[in-house]
Amino acid sequence: VGTRPETALVVASNRGPLSFTTSATGDLVGRRGGGGLVAGLSALGPATWFCAAMSEADRQAVRTGAAVADRGGDVRVRMLDLPADIFDAAYSRIANRTLWFVHHLLFDLARSPSFGASFHADWQAYRSYNATFADAIADEAAADATVLVQDYHLALVPALLRHRRPDLRVGHFCHTPWAPPDYLQLLPVEVVRELLRGHLAADSVGFLSPRWAADFLACCVRFLGAEVASTGAGGTVTVDGRTTMVGVHPLGVDVDDLRTRAAHRDVEDRRATLERRLGGRRVVVRVDRAELSKNILRGFDAYAELLRRRPDLVGEVVHLVHVYPSRTDVPEYRDYAVAVREAAAALVAEFGRPDWEPLLLEVQDDLAAALAAYQLADVVLANPVRDGMNLVAKEAPVVSERDAVLVVSDQAGAADELGAAALVVNPFDVTATASALEQALAMPAAERADRRAELVRAAGACPPAQWVRAQVDALARRD
Amino acid sequence: VGTRPETALVVASNRGPLSFTTSATGDLVGRRGGGGLVAGLSALGPATWFCAAMSEADRQAVRTGAAVADRGGDVRVRMLDLPADIFDAAYSRIANRTLWFVHHLLFDLARSPSFGASFHADWQAYRSYNATFADAIADEAAADATVLVQDYHLALVPALLRHRRPDLRVGHFCHTPWAPPDYLQLLPVEVVRELLRGHLAADSVGFLSPRWAADFLACCVRFLGAEVASTGAGGTVTVDGRTTMVGVHPLGVDVDDLRTRAAHRDVEDRRATLERRLGGRRVVVRVDRAELSKNILRGFDAYAELLRRRPDLVGEVVHLVHVYPSRTDVPEYRDYAVAVREAAAALVAEFGRPDWEPLLLEVQDDLAAALAAYQLADVVLANPVRDGMNLVAKEAPVVSERDAVLVVSDQAGAADELGAAALVVNPFDVTATASALEQALAMPAAERADRRAELVRAAGACPPAQWVRAQVDALARRD
Repeated sequence: VGTRPETALVVASNRGPLSFTTSATGDLVGRRGGGGLVAGLSALGPATWFCAAMSEADRQAVRTGAAVADRGGDVRVRMLDLPADIFDAAYSRIANRTLWFVHHLLFDLARSPSFGASFHADWQAYRSYNATFADAIADEAAADATVLVQDYHLALVPALLRHRRPDLRVGHFCHTPWAPPDYLQLLPVEVVRELLRGHLAADSVGFLSPRWAADFLACCVRFLGAEVASTGAGGTVTVDGRTTMVGVHPLGVDVDDLRTRAAHRDVEDRRATLERRLGGRRVVVRVDRAELSKNILRGFDAYAELLRRRPDLVGEVVHLVHVYPSRTDVPEYRDYAVAVREAAAALVAEFGRPDWEPLLLEVQDDLAAALAAYQLADVVLANPVRDGMNLVAKEAPVVSERDAVLVVSDQAGAADELGAAALVVNPFDVTATASALEQALAMPAAERADRRAELVRAAGACPPAQWVRAQVDALARRD
Repeated sequence: VGTRPETALVVASNRGPLSFTTSATGDLVGRRGGGGLVAGLSALGPATWFCAAMSEADRQAVRTGAAVADRGGDVRVRMLDLPADIFDAAYSRIANRTLWFVHHLLFDLARSPSFGASFHADWQAYRSYNATFADAIADEAAADATVLVQDYHLALVPALLRHRRPDLRVGHFCHTPWAPPDYLQLLPVEVVRELLRGHLAADSVGFLSPRWAADFLACCVRFLGAEVASTGAGGTVTVDGRTTMVGVHPLGVDVDDLRTRAAHRDVEDRRATLERRLGGRRVVVRVDRAELSKNILRGFDAYAELLRRRPDLVGEVVHLVHVYPSRTDVPEYRDYAVAVREAAAALVAEFGRPDWEPLLLEVQDDLAAALAAYQLADVVLANPVRDGMNLVAKEAPVVSERDAVLVVSDQAGAADELGAAALVVNPFDVTATASALEQALAMPAAERADRRAELVRAAGACPPAQWVRAQVDALARRD
């Protein structure tokens, strides 16, 4: 078992809290990332975080030792240097083009997926990538350590770890939805079983919504003949005499942290610029990755339908759209980003006037600009096709300074907690979405304030620290 | 209730048993169609068949009285002359681009469907089209008549009829699959409820497979809060104190009729031509409409994977593909037909030799040629993405003269009855499909003969006459 520092808490995820770029002078520049896991871990004390080197700069950083670094003293980062071809196959083709698509129902079934020889080669790479994580964790985790495995990239790690280190307490958490059985069955059946058994080898499996947990349980019944005890929010799965807990931990936001961040000077600067462009008009805001599941195009359609239905709103309202580039290595994503730009241009061409831009499209990854948009929003539109949670729906109300009304998709995990205070829409129903935008813009101030107070309460109900703690506690209950 | 001939048995379907074209001299030429319903009805005695005028020639025929004709003395055809814009919206956009897509899981969810103002206008047209059928039937059906409503085009007719003529015994039969709840919910919720209530107003609702019946029952529970009693093959649904029977009637073929047809001279001619082209090579046959759900492209991929895996088969086998044009008014179908031609050309370019065409693509609607292909098939590939039944899988073994091995998709209703004797594949698993083709080509003669005998027995288990009789009998049990 090689050298094994005493690492009682382990996190494993594809993307780690550190990434590297190469500067103009050829130096490696490290950058610390954010996200719920980073925020949540800091409260838990020392941990080792295993992640993949995702770029050539990351790989260089591993080789030079720069990537094995403490992060603020608490988190030791162990970046794994996988061969680039293995990583590309596992990450781009299996994780992002197959598993992500299957859990978000994104395939165009007349044409894709197609599981031929190249898929099976990629699947071998995915196994190898998962095994690299399992080997590294097995090598370094302390006896009886707690291991928190994250997301669909690492679905096989619990099974591979169980084999290598039965002493470990292993949890797996899915940040995506889970496919219903009729959709998971698109995959070759041996892959379906390997995926499910990969998860079930954990002591505890977590999801963001009771709906995704229910889909997972239904798949275990259909494809493994599992015995399932459902509690409505998770339950247990028993296969071959072994029982796995299934829990629901709906990640929320740390309200104080977020407001502190939104008070920074950079947000204030963005906001001032934005206010000049908006000219006192009312604002419908969306902030999203350029992601197939985010439903940006139908959001534009709904806004256009609103303008057609309500000509009095022409010139009076602006759709402010922040889209940041995502997965530009995947052809479907490049095409989608192009379609978003084209649809925005078509909308401006149809409705725009010399003195009024109906839609402002900002394509950039700029947190400060997104926070400024949240502050100024009268309405926030978060209408994904399917979404594990949708943190925009939780963040925007917290930062809003105009009691923004939230229009949220019933297919977002966030609708579970926010639905009572938001306007909930079927994301495919453009007419209903237009009606919700119309209703939001007409809502009386008192109702907006009441609803926003409830949104903020619900958004803050399970902040990152509590969410990570819940994953650890679920494993403590193993005994 | 106007003039009401005593019509005790009524059939209603979008496409009727008669259609018209205009000859070069401008005369209307009527053509009788086939299909299970036509074949099955002939045994039941006098009936009136309500159908839509589907073309300008059909509409002229209605106006000149040519379309109200007896068919062989038994079936009086009542063709309904709907305004062309209503028909196009109801048939092309609602029935074929929305309901067909939803029941076959064919949407590319990042982009379609999009239910905006134009959809809602089309939905009004669909209601109007259904109401035209209901009005005509209400006007002409005898007291207590039996009405057999067919398919997804006429989903609202039972509810509209119940209101107009509560005395009628109304059955509805779905020739498609039924969408699982997670997919039906793409539709606006009020449309989902209207569709389900449309069906449930019938006394009996029929499906081709227990799986589609189970999906329908699950949708009734999810969207109407119905009480359901499932028998495994159908059951009952109770909503608002009214109970509807749900039955399963797996349409098969009339073995004797089909063999008689296959013995005609035109088949013999096609067969002789074909044998010359095939030159004694073994033949993998597919016969399909150029239909998104038929999975023609992945069939080509599987055949290509087989040739790569087994170079000894190069020059020794031919993939004979009959595709007949379908729904060429729908852009997705035109694109798909182009993609099929391109994929076939690419396969021929990759594998072809001067003395060998690896794939013969015949794009035409020619029953005799299809029957000749069945006769010569060593293997029949029917690998749909999702299919109510798939009659090719039932017809081909009946006509086969070489004990053809059937490779069938597990997503075809036909797999319920044929699965034990066929090689069953996941239609998305190209590698598994290639393996099934390989296994089929290597199968010993005795096993082929045994399997084929069982396929023929299963295919003939519920011929059209029995299938129609079962729908009528289900309604007789209402009392």
